Amino acid sequence: MYIILKRIRKVMNLVKKVSQNILGNNPKMRIVQFRYGDDKTRIGVLKNDRVVDVNATDPTVPYSLVEFLQTRNPLDALKRIAGSSSIEHNLSDVKLLSPITKPDKILGVASNYKCDCTKRNIQFPKEPTVFTKFPSVITGPYDEIPKSPSTNAMDWEIELVAVIGKTAKHVKAADAMDFVFGYTVTQDLTAKDWVMRNGGQLVMCKGFDGFCPLGPWIVTKEELGDPYDVRLRTWINGELKQDGHSSSMLQRIDKMIEYLSSVMTLLPGDLILTGTPYGVGASQIPPQYLKSGDVMESEIDKIGKMSNKIV
Amino acid sequence: MYIILKRIRKVMNLVKKVSQNILGNNPKMRIVQFRYGDDKTRIGVLKNDRVVDVNATDPTVPYSLVEFLQTRNPLDALKRIAGSSSIEHNLSDVKLLSPITKPDKILGVASNYKCDCTKRNIQFPKEPTVFTKFPSVITGPYDEIPKSPSTNAMDWEIELVAVIGKTAKHVKAADAMDFVFGYTVTQDLTAKDWVMRNGGQLVMCKGFDGFCPLGPWIVTKEELGDPYDVRLRTWINGELKQDGHSSSMLQRIDKMIEYLSSVMTLLPGDLILTGTPYGVGASQIPPQYLKSGDVMESEIDKIGKMSNKIV
Repeated sequence: MYIILKRIRKVMNLVKKVSQNILGNNPKMRIVQFRYGDDKTRIGVLKNDRVVDVNATDPTVPYSLVEFLQTRNPLDALKRIAGSSSIEHNLSDVKLLSPITKPDKILGVASNYKCDCTKRNIQFPKEPTVFTKFPSVITGPYDEIPKSPSTNAMDWEIELVAVIGKTAKHVKAADAMDFVFGYTVTQDLTAKDWVMRNGGQLVMCKGFDGFCPLGPWIVTKEELGDPYDVRLRTWINGELKQDGHSSSMLQRIDKMIEYLSSVMTLLPGDLILTGTPYGVGASQIPPQYLKSGDVMESEIDKIGKMSNKIV
Repeated sequence: MYIILKRIRKVMNLVKKVSQNILGNNPKMRIVQFRYGDDKTRIGVLKNDRVVDVNATDPTVPYSLVEFLQTRNPLDALKRIAGSSSIEHNLSDVKLLSPITKPDKILGVASNYKCDCTKRNIQFPKEPTVFTKFPSVITGPYDEIPKSPSTNAMDWEIELVAVIGKTAKHVKAADAMDFVFGYTVTQDLTAKDWVMRNGGQLVMCKGFDGFCPLGPWIVTKEELGDPYDVRLRTWINGELKQDGHSSSMLQRIDKMIEYLSSVMTLLPGDLILTGTPYGVGASQIPPQYLKSGDVMESEIDKIGKMSNKIV
């Protein structure tokens, strides 16, 4: 009897899965912001080497993913819009922008990888050490990033980014993942010669123009699967510098959302930068920092790869 | 001869002054954001107990002061719009909102008043200690502010706020005041029981919902005159708690703009919170913090007074 019930459930799940795919209910999706022709930031859904132009297909959609995430069931709307009669462009014909622009908050967590703390011989933080970046610091996944004359220690720090999808206040860790929309990649660039300045506040060192390249797209949480099972890599001029794994993350995303939302209201489009694995420039022997002309490539498996030139 | 020249110059200046007033070139102005009838945030100019509805008078003006400050010569446009044929409301018929909403940056400076450092027996910081608040933390000048269950030490800190009017990058102190549009009032509310948590980063303690009441309006820099010659006062339930003077400010606004803009691009609408004088709740004997039902009044002479109830 038990075996029969189990088989029935298995068949039912298979039917559900197949029908979801047929009906387009599969929430696995890659979402971009892009420019095509005019100067407008547009929302798109990736279909291999094609980009569904969400705004051209449905003119009621706002020209900003942050605003779109504030509407009701944006993922359902994206699935509907990306359906049969959508307007599309070749990926090579569009300019990809950062998938999020002008969020309310960019929240980072310092020293959040076991591998990094252990090799640098520093204690695991007992409580998250949250810092912030300004919305205007975000730049595109293939944009050039200026080397400021105000720092001589511009350092890379690849990070998995959780994108908040729903307003979250006083959320418990057990429910927290319901509030995550998806994931993307950043380099949490940091001026290491400013870390101990500014009274120890990580504001100036994280706040240089261009210090938050983001992209190349958002993968929905259903597309990524387990966020603690991805490999993160940074190459500088083709040389592998960081090669870590998110299983080494200390403060997990659900706990972070509980901690943050006990104080502040997390809003759709808010970004949580989850820390960087071992291998930043300051850990090289001798230390190595970004200089004009360097090419920085940043890849997280199952998401994608950014490439930014320092100028 | 010298006396004649001096008199001619005096007469010329008088003519200039009179003609400026006739032509509406006087840049002394009080600017609000308000709601009237619908749900839209509107820009207004105060004329005694009347509010010029800038958006109703000129439909090309954006419904956000931050966006309006990004346009060319916004002050000239405001002067023109506030001229003879403007659409006005009674001040008592509108709801005043914070004069700035959704800026890119809210930047604060810790321990920035001589009187406060001296009485608390702490050294004057050699370099600014810059912290930040999130745009969504801003609330209106007469709005209720929630007492969060996550803090038992919600403290007041009245501060003079400089509002940036023009994009500023690598600006020298000598030129910095050209980039200031005007001034307003805030309470840089702080959860003192969170100051030493979060790895010492002033993010959580400053980032509670409602922790940045702002207003009641912006006075242009021409209207305020010397920003180091204003009195700042906080009353809690009618009892005077802070009574300071901006002459006690350590890091001055021009130097702050030089420091900040050496790293980041300051944008129109960005806010610089310039520190608080002695008399916060943590300095009371015994310490006193805000609780539900308290009424907090905050006044800076030559600007105005806010009143917020804690709920």
